[in-house]
Amino acid sequence: MSALRTIAEEDGAVVILDQTRLPKETAFVRLHTLADAAHAIRVMQVRGAPLIGATAAYGVALGLSEAQPLETILSTLAATRPTAVNLHWALDRMQRVLEKSALAGRQDVAWREARKIAQEDEAANAAIGQHGLAMLRPLATNKGRLNLMTHCNAGWLATVAHGTAISPMYAAHANGLDIHVWVSETRPRNQGLLTAWELAQAGVPHTLIADNAAGLLMMQGKVDCIIVGADRIAANGDTANKVGTYLKALAAQAHKVPFYVAAPVSTVDYACPDGSRIPIEERAADELGAGDVPVANPAFDVTPANLIAGIITEHGIVAPGELASIKP
Amino acid sequence: MSALRTIAEEDGAVVILDQTRLPKETAFVRLHTLADAAHAIRVMQVRGAPLIGATAAYGVALGLSEAQPLETILSTLAATRPTAVNLHWALDRMQRVLEKSALAGRQDVAWREARKIAQEDEAANAAIGQHGLAMLRPLATNKGRLNLMTHCNAGWLATVAHGTAISPMYAAHANGLDIHVWVSETRPRNQGLLTAWELAQAGVPHTLIADNAAGLLMMQGKVDCIIVGADRIAANGDTANKVGTYLKALAAQAHKVPFYVAAPVSTVDYACPDGSRIPIEERAADELGAGDVPVANPAFDVTPANLIAGIITEHGIVAPGELASIKP
Repeated sequence: MSALRTIAEEDGAVVILDQTRLPKETAFVRLHTLADAAHAIRVMQVRGAPLIGATAAYGVALGLSEAQPLETILSTLAATRPTAVNLHWALDRMQRVLEKSALAGRQDVAWREARKIAQEDEAANAAIGQHGLAMLRPLATNKGRLNLMTHCNAGWLATVAHGTAISPMYAAHANGLDIHVWVSETRPRNQGLLTAWELAQAGVPHTLIADNAAGLLMMQGKVDCIIVGADRIAANGDTANKVGTYLKALAAQAHKVPFYVAAPVSTVDYACPDGSRIPIEERAADELGAGDVPVANPAFDVTPANLIAGIITEHGIVAPGELASIKP
Repeated sequence: MSALRTIAEEDGAVVILDQTRLPKETAFVRLHTLADAAHAIRVMQVRGAPLIGATAAYGVALGLSEAQPLETILSTLAATRPTAVNLHWALDRMQRVLEKSALAGRQDVAWREARKIAQEDEAANAAIGQHGLAMLRPLATNKGRLNLMTHCNAGWLATVAHGTAISPMYAAHANGLDIHVWVSETRPRNQGLLTAWELAQAGVPHTLIADNAAGLLMMQGKVDCIIVGADRIAANGDTANKVGTYLKALAAQAHKVPFYVAAPVSTVDYACPDGSRIPIEERAADELGAGDVPVANPAFDVTPANLIAGIITEHGIVAPGELASIKP
């Protein structure tokens, strides 16, 4: 498996990078069954909206290879993570394609469609990188180093390849822009460590901070642009992303720092009119590691469209109010 | 030593609760020397602006008991934590009193003045509790449970007794108000666990959250009032407090949640015109526990006066722009 891909096929199984063991260990897991795929999504061996979608698609193929009923397969996978719209988008797409094909050929169709979803994600993210680069270039003019900020991990680890929010940063670095990235820890699961690990591997200058430090850095003028990923974008542009994103967006507004969301159009839930309808996943208390203290642990928050300068998609950068213009 | 006091005298030594071992262990440390006191402040065995001040005052007494020169004592203690104004306030007060007294009697004077500083802190915090209670009462009218939020630890552990931000919460609970407190983890040092421990001991309902969750909870209408402590308040009301406070204040403004600072008037630095002049302590990278990743770790941020509804002092609640009215 290539070093910069998170998921690949191998002899009728699916191999994934086990992200729960990063950054300490680069370990791979072979998924043989539907249960393996559902488990990988639930315990976050795979994470990031686009990668969850691709893994779910392969999960359908694995389930059919075990001769499990399609309905069971779809409901098992749908129950793993409630907020990620790409999960449901991928399952809907698999269902539509499979219901059109003869029972006998479904297994092959499922593998082919899952592969296509993975390849499309890779291509979409490469395009996001180029559109983001075009946005960053003018910010870097008449400036020394360009200070970017991100939250959580929306790099290649969160996708099949390239990443979403980090894809423009990779493109900028590869094209000679002098960038530095503030990486917020992203409690409670510390996905910022994954982002720091990715950036270190690619040689992109970066600094890890506690999530709490983001407001101070903006007040001090040390942040030129923020790019984050998205787990679900409502039709009006309200964006659900890892909890803590909203606090960064509020500080960005207070200090006139442009705040961008980067995501493939599959992350837009056109059936969801606004952010108030997005379900917020409550995760286990033990993620905070505080013993038997009473805990609330919502995994996402919603950043209102009015705080977002633009949404960087594979079709270009669109204002949050203009998502209808790129509806597939 | 009483269970709800952080510092006490014992046979010519000073006994402190070692807060680096809480909440796992309730352990006490005896300070015998100036070096012991400076160490306790530096490594945060004692923490919280008022308690740092009291410990520094006792540190002066310990230094004089060792027959160290007063100048050495003052400079050693002043160097331990740059942001806490109470540290400098306490040292200035000790210096003024000592310089007025005969050399032979200085040791006794120092012990007496340190004791007075500790007693005054206890009384000031009790008064803060009552003034805060008067502010909370009308918020609780026509409501079921009153949901409060705090950041870091500004409870009795951060002071000699009672606490600052938590003192009104204890007073409210003791007076039969139905309150619940959202306690933010407060990375990187997790002082929220100390607050949760305190509240559990006092039987006050509370829930620990990741710092990142504060914005979502306010958006969901689950926060009625925020009270935080302060490490230094500039003359115009700009307030330095534990990093992350500013992000909560921004979210409070966005959702019209009243945001209060609770602190004794000794926390006001009348010589400092505004927040831009407050030095921000940069602490060690290893506090984030991220191995050899590049890290920035500012310990405080500054909340502008315009985001603060009022400052709860021992003399009553004053608007941030009216601190001159309570200047000692």
